[in-house]
Amino acid sequence: MIGITLLLLAMQLQPARAWRQANEHAILREFIDLLSLPNVAANVADMRRNAAHIQGLFDKRGVKTRLLEAAGSPPAIYGELLAPGSKQTVIFYVHYDGQPVEPEKWTMTGKNPFRPTLRSATAEVPFTPETKLDPEWRLYARSAGDDKAPIIALLAALDALRAANMAPRANIKFLLDGEEEAGSPHLGQIVEANKELLSGDFWIFCDGPVHQTRQQQIAFGARGSTGVHITVYGPNKELHSGHYGNWAPNPAFMLAQLLASMKDADGRVLVKDFYKGVEPLSETEKKALAAMPNVDETLKSEFGLARTEKVGSRLEEAIQMPSLNIRGLSSGAVGAGSRNVIPSEATASLDIRVVKGIDYRVAIERVKEHIRAQGYYVTDRDPDDAMRRRYPRIAKVTVRDGDNSVRTSMDLEVSQMVIRAVEAARGPVVKAPLLGGTLPLQVFDEVLHRPVIVVPIANHDNNQHSHNENIRLQNLWDGIEIMAALLLM
Amino acid sequence: MIGITLLLLAMQLQPARAWRQANEHAILREFIDLLSLPNVAANVADMRRNAAHIQGLFDKRGVKTRLLEAAGSPPAIYGELLAPGSKQTVIFYVHYDGQPVEPEKWTMTGKNPFRPTLRSATAEVPFTPETKLDPEWRLYARSAGDDKAPIIALLAALDALRAANMAPRANIKFLLDGEEEAGSPHLGQIVEANKELLSGDFWIFCDGPVHQTRQQQIAFGARGSTGVHITVYGPNKELHSGHYGNWAPNPAFMLAQLLASMKDADGRVLVKDFYKGVEPLSETEKKALAAMPNVDETLKSEFGLARTEKVGSRLEEAIQMPSLNIRGLSSGAVGAGSRNVIPSEATASLDIRVVKGIDYRVAIERVKEHIRAQGYYVTDRDPDDAMRRRYPRIAKVTVRDGDNSVRTSMDLEVSQMVIRAVEAARGPVVKAPLLGGTLPLQVFDEVLHRPVIVVPIANHDNNQHSHNENIRLQNLWDGIEIMAALLLM
Repeated sequence: MIGITLLLLAMQLQPARAWRQANEHAILREFIDLLSLPNVAANVADMRRNAAHIQGLFDKRGVKTRLLEAAGSPPAIYGELLAPGSKQTVIFYVHYDGQPVEPEKWTMTGKNPFRPTLRSATAEVPFTPETKLDPEWRLYARSAGDDKAPIIALLAALDALRAANMAPRANIKFLLDGEEEAGSPHLGQIVEANKELLSGDFWIFCDGPVHQTRQQQIAFGARGSTGVHITVYGPNKELHSGHYGNWAPNPAFMLAQLLASMKDADGRVLVKDFYKGVEPLSETEKKALAAMPNVDETLKSEFGLARTEKVGSRLEEAIQMPSLNIRGLSSGAVGAGSRNVIPSEATASLDIRVVKGIDYRVAIERVKEHIRAQGYYVTDRDPDDAMRRRYPRIAKVTVRDGDNSVRTSMDLEVSQMVIRAVEAARGPVVKAPLLGGTLPLQVFDEVLHRPVIVVPIANHDNNQHSHNENIRLQNLWDGIEIMAALLLM
Repeated sequence: MIGITLLLLAMQLQPARAWRQANEHAILREFIDLLSLPNVAANVADMRRNAAHIQGLFDKRGVKTRLLEAAGSPPAIYGELLAPGSKQTVIFYVHYDGQPVEPEKWTMTGKNPFRPTLRSATAEVPFTPETKLDPEWRLYARSAGDDKAPIIALLAALDALRAANMAPRANIKFLLDGEEEAGSPHLGQIVEANKELLSGDFWIFCDGPVHQTRQQQIAFGARGSTGVHITVYGPNKELHSGHYGNWAPNPAFMLAQLLASMKDADGRVLVKDFYKGVEPLSETEKKALAAMPNVDETLKSEFGLARTEKVGSRLEEAIQMPSLNIRGLSSGAVGAGSRNVIPSEATASLDIRVVKGIDYRVAIERVKEHIRAQGYYVTDRDPDDAMRRRYPRIAKVTVRDGDNSVRTSMDLEVSQMVIRAVEAARGPVVKAPLLGGTLPLQVFDEVLHRPVIVVPIANHDNNQHSHNENIRLQNLWDGIEIMAALLLM
């Protein structure tokens, strides 16, 4: 039965591929125009220009759109394409904002992250109507991979289906978030205010990369994340390290000792109960995990690593577990700018990843409790001199807001349906119980109580969140076929 | 015998005080003119203007001067005032350059560090021939304390002696360094090239502050200093902390663990043999150290500290020992700028203070050996991918040049002579075996093999090396009497 469905679906997708092959230039042109619009969420005016442009693109495909507003923030874009009489509703989530940029680092685009640039492995390629496109070329621009590619893939898939006189069998809805890279601060509010509009059977979450082997991947959830900033204190002003070294406590050493107490040499977290409560995987999920390609050696080579941490026996296992990461350290100055001082304070920013079964607020409390257990007085404000003279060790701990982990069971019928659709387009896929990175899935789980399944299309080496972000053309082409398959479910 | 000498000397100093009291305005006028000349060592043209001006001031007092040149750098100024038939030669070291300036921070001088400004505790005081000078007022300008004050004090002392028909009994020589704040990079070369000219019995090193209690202080040496920059490595580029956290080693954690291994919670250095070789203090020095005023509680209150490190039982003891200090930490980004990455590297800059008996090069080797003992491959270059894939832990360690500690025995006859002279002028003085900070004393010890004794005159709160540097007038007046006493030794 499944075999026949797959075959049918695969046959139906033939016209989608043909249409894409005949229209690559037009698709890329549309993508380049979209990527030319700066889309950092903090710039609401820029985001409204993006939203208007995207509404225009959907309009052309007969998708009715409207903006869902939250005061003072970029709007979310809602779209719908209803199938009269259908009982099933699938909702696609994409985001149209991108990470902040440091233009001077964008060496592949002439230092302009919003000048989309086509490149071979070695050089820029002029994009003209005559250009013969190599699928290994990449298009560089902010959001090329994360997350405007799925928007273009969905639009092209709609075109392809229409050209083949096919239409989605289910009601299709779209929700385009305008501030995912800012942590989707209003998504919960927008969803709460539009529960009826956003009702449906399940969500397809289009974000993230495919597997490092370039095999297509479906993920059934993601780790949650939160974080803390920790500042510890020495003297109330920088002191001369000659006159006072050996006497005034050095906050950089204090911070080093505090952080060193949190993890062992192999990366296992030593914070009490840090791993307590992790919800175990089902048999289906364990089998899927075991079947995931082992990319440890490839990645170690790629990243220049002679060893890895030992929380899991390999990467895919490791990211099923909570993690504690230092994002950054700062105290005084280093290198040529360093001066002979005992710094006044030292700061570390950490992120915490949680998995199903551990609330992020609980994880934060465990870290705070650990800091207290090292002899620190924990506060959330800058210490004044009275506080400094009272407590030998003070840690200011401020907390980032967080997300919990969401994990959709692979055993659900909708999970199996999505697997079948994607495999029809792309053959056997990698099925990941949890992605390591965090996605704003929480609202679908905790507010709408609907399953959410992540179908990414970008190449894993898309430089997401960094400079020189890019999409490999083949990933875009594959993405179009995947979206066509999902629209036909 | 000593009592009688002291009394005699004190009587001889009466005319010096009277002369100073009658001539405060002229002294201050001369000081203001000198401080008006910008004197950052990097500007050689400025420094030559200072040198010519200072030569003029010495000429007026019958001191013969010449410039000692080193190519491309500010000259040193040599001066001499020989006492025919005398067998003793005393050489005074002062420096006439000042630290670089950030004019906008000089709030006490109208944002011009070279506009000497007289101030009461609350306001600027116009300096006119009628101004009645309060000894608690301060004169603000770059080098007011560090280190043009001793130049003016010496000149005024020469005037005072001449007015009283007295003359130095010993041959007096002067060496004025033009690049001390730049680390005296040519002092060794200049001294080597002028060994004959600079021959003498011992050196008086006029720099640094008096004791925090405002009591006069003599220091018989200073700690040496050097330092290392340590960088440890994670993946060869920043990685997403969600996708790779728990798997890719985090260099910030590695650095924290490495640094934490170097010191215990009370600040004692755990590097093997770090304290080995410290030359013990003599009984005289131990007694002098024990007699130093205990300022721990005052300073703890001033600096907002509830505890101190435990290398010595109090500050003065602690700075007789080697120290290891973190000047700065850097990895990724912290606070609002932090991103969800595993940083690619983490750096700490450390300074090492050494005391008599430990060569700074040995101290550096001990730290390097410690790093190796923590499992690191130590290199002095950036690792390439082959090196990264070969060694699980890599530390790039680069070394700053250094100075050894110099400590002149308090038991030497010249030491006792200097103590007697200064006590004749100022009563009981604080005698410090070693200053915590580093001074360029090494050349006198290691090249000329002559004793060197540090006689500072500036107030401890002179904002040395920072903006709003100043001298308290009473410190200048006291300095004149001290210099007169030293000239009469």
